Amino acid sequence: MDTIAAISTALGEGAIGIVRLSGDQAIDISDKLFKGTTKLSEVKTHTITYGHLVEGNEVIEEAMVTVMHGPKTYTRENIVEINCHGGLVSVNRVLQAALSHGARLAEPGEFTKRAFLNGRIDLSQAEGVMDLIRSKSDQAMNVAMRQVEGRLSGKIQHLRQQLLETVAAVEVNIDYPEYDAETMTQQIIREKMMPVLVEIDHLLVTAKQGKVLREGLATAIIGRPNVGKSSLMNSLVHESKAIVTDIPGTTRDTLEEYVNVRGVPLRLIDTAGIRETEDIVEKIGVERSRKALKEAELILLVLNNSEPLTMEDEALFKAVEDMDVVIIVNKTDQKQAIDIKKVHQFANGRPVVTTSLIHDEGVDQLEEAIKQLFFAGDIEGQDLTYVSNARHIGLLNEAKRRAEDALQATEMDVPVDLIQIDVTRTWELLGEIIGEDVQDSLIDQLFSQFCLGK
Amino acid sequence: MDTIAAISTALGEGAIGIVRLSGDQAIDISDKLFKGTTKLSEVKTHTITYGHLVEGNEVIEEAMVTVMHGPKTYTRENIVEINCHGGLVSVNRVLQAALSHGARLAEPGEFTKRAFLNGRIDLSQAEGVMDLIRSKSDQAMNVAMRQVEGRLSGKIQHLRQQLLETVAAVEVNIDYPEYDAETMTQQIIREKMMPVLVEIDHLLVTAKQGKVLREGLATAIIGRPNVGKSSLMNSLVHESKAIVTDIPGTTRDTLEEYVNVRGVPLRLIDTAGIRETEDIVEKIGVERSRKALKEAELILLVLNNSEPLTMEDEALFKAVEDMDVVIIVNKTDQKQAIDIKKVHQFANGRPVVTTSLIHDEGVDQLEEAIKQLFFAGDIEGQDLTYVSNARHIGLLNEAKRRAEDALQATEMDVPVDLIQIDVTRTWELLGEIIGEDVQDSLIDQLFSQFCLGK
Repeated sequence: MDTIAAISTALGEGAIGIVRLSGDQAIDISDKLFKGTTKLSEVKTHTITYGHLVEGNEVIEEAMVTVMHGPKTYTRENIVEINCHGGLVSVNRVLQAALSHGARLAEPGEFTKRAFLNGRIDLSQAEGVMDLIRSKSDQAMNVAMRQVEGRLSGKIQHLRQQLLETVAAVEVNIDYPEYDAETMTQQIIREKMMPVLVEIDHLLVTAKQGKVLREGLATAIIGRPNVGKSSLMNSLVHESKAIVTDIPGTTRDTLEEYVNVRGVPLRLIDTAGIRETEDIVEKIGVERSRKALKEAELILLVLNNSEPLTMEDEALFKAVEDMDVVIIVNKTDQKQAIDIKKVHQFANGRPVVTTSLIHDEGVDQLEEAIKQLFFAGDIEGQDLTYVSNARHIGLLNEAKRRAEDALQATEMDVPVDLIQIDVTRTWELLGEIIGEDVQDSLIDQLFSQFCLGK
Repeated sequence: MDTIAAISTALGEGAIGIVRLSGDQAIDISDKLFKGTTKLSEVKTHTITYGHLVEGNEVIEEAMVTVMHGPKTYTRENIVEINCHGGLVSVNRVLQAALSHGARLAEPGEFTKRAFLNGRIDLSQAEGVMDLIRSKSDQAMNVAMRQVEGRLSGKIQHLRQQLLETVAAVEVNIDYPEYDAETMTQQIIREKMMPVLVEIDHLLVTAKQGKVLREGLATAIIGRPNVGKSSLMNSLVHESKAIVTDIPGTTRDTLEEYVNVRGVPLRLIDTAGIRETEDIVEKIGVERSRKALKEAELILLVLNNSEPLTMEDEALFKAVEDMDVVIIVNKTDQKQAIDIKKVHQFANGRPVVTTSLIHDEGVDQLEEAIKQLFFAGDIEGQDLTYVSNARHIGLLNEAKRRAEDALQATEMDVPVDLIQIDVTRTWELLGEIIGEDVQDSLIDQLFSQFCLGK
């Protein structure tokens, strides 16, 4: 395979930038642009060497160069990582130099793809790597890290093993038909498929949580003008354990819309709208709220304790009829004018919390209500293998259907060799999760979503 | 000194992120969060080790960890670089872990400051490091790299040595006054100070080029509506050797306004204005051009070959009377209506180029004209120690004045011990460039402009 090179650090002004090479020629190519006391081809594996990078006679950079011989590397190939000064021009120039000496610019995800193709990790682990990089919260990172460690892979492999044993058992019975083979075999399939189905179901139960942990729960704050939407948002952002270190001029803006409520990552949508409209004059009111509802998975509906319910309030209740909602009756510091009984009627069993946000009262109860809604009690705290990837969920659902079909068929006197098709298909579908028997085109497509240099 | 830690790669989604620690405790602190086959305190210096980062029993990341024992390191202290997956959350979490085990969050530039305080580099080299990271073109990077390598430092030290010898020679004569000491000494000072002054002058001559190479030449494209300003810009951007590799979705936007014309980096100003106004309807015309002129160092004035000169054209010529201008008579593919003789009169010796930009004609001549204007012939291609830093230029100018004062004084029978004050002050001023005798407050201020993790 040819030797690939890419910038492996995020682009921007950084103290250190890394250009990474992988392949047979990685060390030889690096030696062509490196000048140090030792040649890179002569240093020990897994060591870092100081030197200069040169173009002709001109020194273009000073660098620390890490040399790692395969197969104990990320890709299992020879890897060289050139650590240079992290400016845009600097890393680009080093990359150019590497390319001019025979490396090929790596495609997005190509390093990880090689790790997969060379058998160091399976597909679900590779996908975990990308999730790890993209994660927006500690929880999301935990889910991804478990996937990288191979916990999902382990479960999937275990399931596939059981399915394989089922097939094997069936084959045995078909080959030696001295018993009432059909009935006997259907019995075996039933016994073996049942726990498989239970386990697939279990994985799917975790999928909702996994998805939320990864992407955050799309949350809309809605309500009439001046009920306290902006205060609520500020309160949530403020209370939230900061997701990232508050380093001057870095990530605050990017992540501002993510808040962490007792372990539930909320992605606040339309926050700009809330700020804008409450800061100046809110003209759009209910209309804007309606729009935010479309993509929301959780609604925080704010009402004003000091005013009677209006037609607008009722319209909002109507709009969120079938959704996960927490109702917040705000401004309890002011004289009550709202009909709280009616609020509970509208709430229809969904949680109602009273707050005085400007005095920071009731926020605890609100957060607890959100947490309860998300962590359905028993799930919390367990060491779950969260499935969070849409591709995996899709495959699990399909595998579940096939397993159910197989089970049903055993009750309906369907010929065993037909049932076995479903069993085999279940096995194949689970295999696709970890990258067994997947088509090249799918692999290409998956890795092309990676970031460069990984 | 306490052990500092910071994220040393640019923040963003990257394949690899680095958290760097420097100080006595760097290795011990890292060991508290690292789990591998070997303890980091037991690995050899300048090696990289694979393992996992843990918080309690939970694996938070997998990582490659480089251990480097001082003094052969960037800071001369023990350094540990933790290479982890490069997402925002990931690097932040690793940083948090390091901080929780006793490291202190580094201030901007603190690693480089330690390199300076520990005597590995001088101040002008440290400033070169920052220039290197911030450089926007290959040339700018070359200038910075020379500074990092210590070429400016070398020249400054050589000058200071000569000044020191001058002072010593004077002292000798004062102590043994058997000759006509005063005259004798003035003679010595003259002989020794003259080459110093010449050298300072030489450094200052390179400063204009150095500044341009570092910051780009602020260039305004001006002209009436529809003369071809937008075409000119596109043509320059297109012809320019791409400053950075054209990687999808990366730096194109950031650097779009920088173009490289035969080694002269132009920073095109008000490019948005040009696009906007020519794309839609240009309402603001000359008024906008006038505004762009204020910060421009180079003017590209575009005229329309197919129309007679207008009052607006003349107003523009008037506005750029005392500036570096290249006049472009565009649209030579259309019938000439412009009075070319009059154009040359207005140009008043400044270069006039005729182009048909939509047919890509005349661009070569234009680029040559720009290059000639900037590289005053003989300077190009020489291996100059470009001075590009405003602080350095200021100090060199002040040193030059003091050196001139000293020389003048030798002609005016000023007492030698008074002249010597100027000589000593010259020596001190040059010392400030490389960080000798500079105040702590200045050092703090300089390094605070660095990026984090450097």
